[in-house]
Amino acid sequence: MDIATLVGLIGTFTLILIAIGSNLPGFIDPASVVIVIGGATLTVMTSMPLGRVLGLHKVVMKSVFTQSNDLKGLASKLVEFATVARRDGILALENHIDDDTDPFISTGVRMAVDGTDPQLIEKLLFAEIESLADRHKNGKAICDLMGKYAPAFGMIGTLIGLVIMLSNMSDPSAIGPGMAVALLTTLYGAVMANAIFLPIADKLAYYSKEELKARMLILQGVMAIQSGDNPRIVEQKLNVFLAPSERGGHEEA
Amino acid sequence: MDIATLVGLIGTFTLILIAIGSNLPGFIDPASVVIVIGGATLTVMTSMPLGRVLGLHKVVMKSVFTQSNDLKGLASKLVEFATVARRDGILALENHIDDDTDPFISTGVRMAVDGTDPQLIEKLLFAEIESLADRHKNGKAICDLMGKYAPAFGMIGTLIGLVIMLSNMSDPSAIGPGMAVALLTTLYGAVMANAIFLPIADKLAYYSKEELKARMLILQGVMAIQSGDNPRIVEQKLNVFLAPSERGGHEEA
Amino acid sequence: MDIATLVGLIGTFTLILIAIGSNLPGFIDPASVVIVIGGATLTVMTSMPLGRVLGLHKVVMKSVFTQSNDLKGLASKLVEFATVARRDGILALENHIDDDTDPFISTGVRMAVDGTDPQLIEKLLFAEIESLADRHKNGKAICDLMGKYAPAFGMIGTLIGLVIMLSNMSDPSAIGPGMAVALLTTLYGAVMANAIFLPIADKLAYYSKEELKARMLILQGVMAIQSGDNPRIVEQKLNVFLAPSERGGHEEA
Amino acid sequence: MDIATLVGLIGTFTLILIAIGSNLPGFIDPASVVIVIGGATLTVMTSMPLGRVLGLHKVVMKSVFTQSNDLKGLASKLVEFATVARRDGILALENHIDDDTDPFISTGVRMAVDGTDPQLIEKLLFAEIESLADRHKNGKAICDLMGKYAPAFGMIGTLIGLVIMLSNMSDPSAIGPGMAVALLTTLYGAVMANAIFLPIADKLAYYSKEELKARMLILQGVMAIQSGDNPRIVEQKLNVFLAPSERGGHEEA
Amino acid sequence: MDIATLVGLIGTFTLILIAIGSNLPGFIDPASVVIVIGGATLTVMTSMPLGRVLGLHKVVMKSVFTQSNDLKGLASKLVEFATVARRDGILALENHIDDDTDPFISTGVRMAVDGTDPQLIEKLLFAEIESLADRHKNGKAICDLMGKYAPAFGMIGTLIGLVIMLSNMSDPSAIGPGMAVALLTTLYGAVMANAIFLPIADKLAYYSKEELKARMLILQGVMAIQSGDNPRIVEQKLNVFLAPSERGGHEEA
Repeated sequence: MDIATLVGLIGTFTLILIAIGSNLPGFIDPASVVIVIGGATLTVMTSMPLGRVLGLHKVVMKSVFTQSNDLKGLASKLVEFATVARRDGILALENHIDDDTDPFISTGVRMAVDGTDPQLIEKLLFAEIESLADRHKNGKAICDLMGKYAPAFGMIGTLIGLVIMLSNMSDPSAIGPGMAVALLTTLYGAVMANAIFLPIADKLAYYSKEELKARMLILQGVMAIQSGDNPRIVEQKLNVFLAPSERGGHEEA
Repeated sequence: MDIATLVGLIGTFTLILIAIGSNLPGFIDPASVVIVIGGATLTVMTSMPLGRVLGLHKVVMKSVFTQSNDLKGLASKLVEFATVARRDGILALENHIDDDTDPFISTGVRMAVDGTDPQLIEKLLFAEIESLADRHKNGKAICDLMGKYAPAFGMIGTLIGLVIMLSNMSDPSAIGPGMAVALLTTLYGAVMANAIFLPIADKLAYYSKEELKARMLILQGVMAIQSGDNPRIVEQKLNVFLAPSERGGHEEA
Repeated sequence: MDIATLVGLIGTFTLILIAIGSNLPGFIDPASVVIVIGGATLTVMTSMPLGRVLGLHKVVMKSVFTQSNDLKGLASKLVEFATVARRDGILALENHIDDDTDPFISTGVRMAVDGTDPQLIEKLLFAEIESLADRHKNGKAICDLMGKYAPAFGMIGTLIGLVIMLSNMSDPSAIGPGMAVALLTTLYGAVMANAIFLPIADKLAYYSKEELKARMLILQGVMAIQSGDNPRIVEQKLNVFLAPSERGGHEEA
Repeated sequence: MDIATLVGLIGTFTLILIAIGSNLPGFIDPASVVIVIGGATLTVMTSMPLGRVLGLHKVVMKSVFTQSNDLKGLASKLVEFATVARRDGILALENHIDDDTDPFISTGVRMAVDGTDPQLIEKLLFAEIESLADRHKNGKAICDLMGKYAPAFGMIGTLIGLVIMLSNMSDPSAIGPGMAVALLTTLYGAVMANAIFLPIADKLAYYSKEELKARMLILQGVMAIQSGDNPRIVEQKLNVFLAPSERGGHEEA
Repeated sequence: MDIATLVGLIGTFTLILIAIGSNLPGFIDPASVVIVIGGATLTVMTSMPLGRVLGLHKVVMKSVFTQSNDLKGLASKLVEFATVARRDGILALENHIDDDTDPFISTGVRMAVDGTDPQLIEKLLFAEIESLADRHKNGKAICDLMGKYAPAFGMIGTLIGLVIMLSNMSDPSAIGPGMAVALLTTLYGAVMANAIFLPIADKLAYYSKEELKARMLILQGVMAIQSGDNPRIVEQKLNVFLAPSERGGHEEA
């Protein structure tokens, strides 16, 4: 679970509430809430297929509950597999795959064990990675669109409020409060975009990049194992995916 | 038919009408409508060839009435064809193509049956996909341009209204209503761009991506059938185009 | 001649004049015209070589008077040439080239007839296309820059007007008209960019894409003829450049 | 140490303080500080993993304390190594590597001495460079995000201030000061983004580019040494990384 | 010397001075000049290494004093060299290189005469071109950054001015002039960016493109000479770099 997302979201809203303080009642206007949240959500529906929009909450949850990839653990596992394959033959790997093994490793290793053509293994694993990147992009796209249309409907709401206020200026003392209400939708749109959807889209992009990197590490590892590389070479090939501080002690060259 | 586009469009306008409520008469100004819609449409005419602009309604309709691609069905069909080709020879496929077959599959399979050079088949099918992508882009471009020029003419209309109002400030009580009218064109431009044309352009981009993906799946399938791949390999190659949840039960490796 | 460009430009200005109506005198301020048009043009002179800036009118004219490419006609011509080359040998093509032949076809076919190395033909024709794309980009760049600097000088003019007005606020009744004049430059800049230069840049980009596509079609055709392809294959290769509705009846596969 | 970063940062703030002058007390508002700095930092926490955000100060420090790469020195060192390898054989290089040698040179040369396959050396060194580029990008990303969200929270703070002020307009003399406070957050956001985080991100990008260039120089040098190139050829190959004024006197061709 | 840059710069400032007219004293505020020019320059110092910032005047001068490349002359020279090489052998070229020869041609031809491996010649010349492109980009980057930070400090100055003015609103007659002064920094920033630095960056980009094109022409020419191409083929290969109107009379095919 990503505590930072939660702290970030809750902290930002706490700060905003503190800044508003005792003026809170003046900041709550149901009609303004409806036009910004409703308008942005309905417009995202025009922009994307229904299924995607209905899955928005899952995408948001993902930004909180994603597990980080343990690149170092994956690299060790693959070096271990390379050692086994070198010592006992590649078929021996079958017994080392169990339910705890990363499914992408299992798929790759099983294809290698089955004697699938190496070029086909590489092509299939790579296509799988591209396909995953694509699904990630679609998830992020919903947040991007909410971040794009929320401020737009904030502005539309403010324009509507201004036109109404300016058309009925008989009572000058009503101008201030009228304008305050008109500005609320701009505020709502800015908060929705900048405190929720855009940063969540950033976090999803970060997780996507990390997960794709983990898959590329596995792809390199499986290809190295398949071609019978020396475990030390496998380690060297996988170490480049790790930050220098995470690298194993074996590597010295 | 894409119910989401329709719900999105109708819902957004309903929301805006509710927000305006009884002030509706103050929001309708024929001159403002003409300058924003007319100005944006005429400017798009300067930007694009006439034929494209006249086809705008078709492009908009497409965002409502496009049929989603059934990637899983296409994959099954191609695996079925691969099984037939493997069992009865590639010429046997001719009898399995009928009017219900996707025309892109028919074209590809017919070329394979005719013994066309595989590289030429791939080149032609790929060029066809690129050409389709190009036509899609042109359709979307009209919506993009409407979404770009509508707010610009909204601003031009507001500037014209402000200059007129500011030049005749003898009656202070007319300032409010004058400014209200001036702001209307900005509102119209913002609504046209953000509630109609930009989200429709987003949806068209989504459909284009889906359709190109379906074509790439077919291209891969035809090439695999042509080269006499084992149906199980064909399935593996096509499965990467599907979300994991849609994949067939055969795949286990 | 591209009637749409003309209709778009004239129509937009007619609309703007109608919106201004009887207030026209208040919208004409020679000093504001000079700072926006002069400032933008002089700044484009800083941005680009003199020759380019002086050729601006030619670029604008091109957006009105360009002839659309007849892709279908080009394809037919090349298929016809392929038939001749197949039947009577490639040297026979020399007699079929006359002054009506597209000069890019003539160049390509003449090189083929002269027995120039196919790779060199492809390289030279492709370099020619890239060079044309480059010249197109330079023409469009002037319009892009006018569209970028006109609003900037509109804003600069408005800031100058505001500073003058705010420094001399002794007579409150002069504030309105002073601000009206200050806003005029912003209006001029917005109109110049959005009603003239940006849409003309869009149209030039469109024409460039079409012309480059025609050249790519010819390149493919000449290479196919040179390599002695069957005319039916040549037709298939060129058809991918055409919209499905434009394709010839021969193609059935 | 990069004196320019320090001079730039301190100088800019000195200038701003001079411009504010004796009005300083009116420019300090703790609540505004909290919403802009706090809001931006918490939102970056939503956008990025916790570890990255906590490392922000290190990234900022790096923009001040990075050592420039001595490309000329690296090139000379590699030419010297090429001379040794040519004269005494590549194994002789082992004695020339010591703790002062750039670790990237050591890694590369050691692999060459160990007889590692040249293609593998190139692949590993290149992957190392890509991995470094990636780590650099992640460091810069924090500054980019601070530069993006600080102005956003500046605007959110101003909107909150305006709504509070407009809702309580009973005392007209309080409007000015109220609006002054409301604008403070916009000012804070603009200063944080434009005087601190965006320029630091620019500087980090510059350093990253320089360091990657140094690594590419080393990669080219190691590969040239490994393939037994004549030292003069090695020098020619490495000179292209240097500005003409930095190049050695040997080069004459 | 590029007269257009000079005319553009001087002309734009003349226009602005005319628009300001007798109000000039109200437009000069030393504190505002310091915050915009000083703030932008110091921030560029944070963004870039010191040496680059101190070289800013050289970069600006370059936009005025650059000599255009004579592509046609370069092409003729290379065709002439090809004729000599064909007739008298490549070694004969040595006598045709003198101090007037473009140094990039000399370098290339000398390597060819020395019998350097053609692939190495191409690699070295190409790396030289990339390295030049890189140096050009760095020069342009300073202007880009000035163009980015000048308006930012214009806005910061205006915000500071507004806060000071709004905090001391006891004398309503001081509001106008106070706001006039506050707007001055925005004006300065807009003029610095749009009349000086952004167009100069555009011009530098243009010159860079032209110079890189000249180098690519030379690279192609040297490679063609080295491989012993027929002078007519060399001319054809180089003509693609010239506009059709500049091409020599030889070319007829």
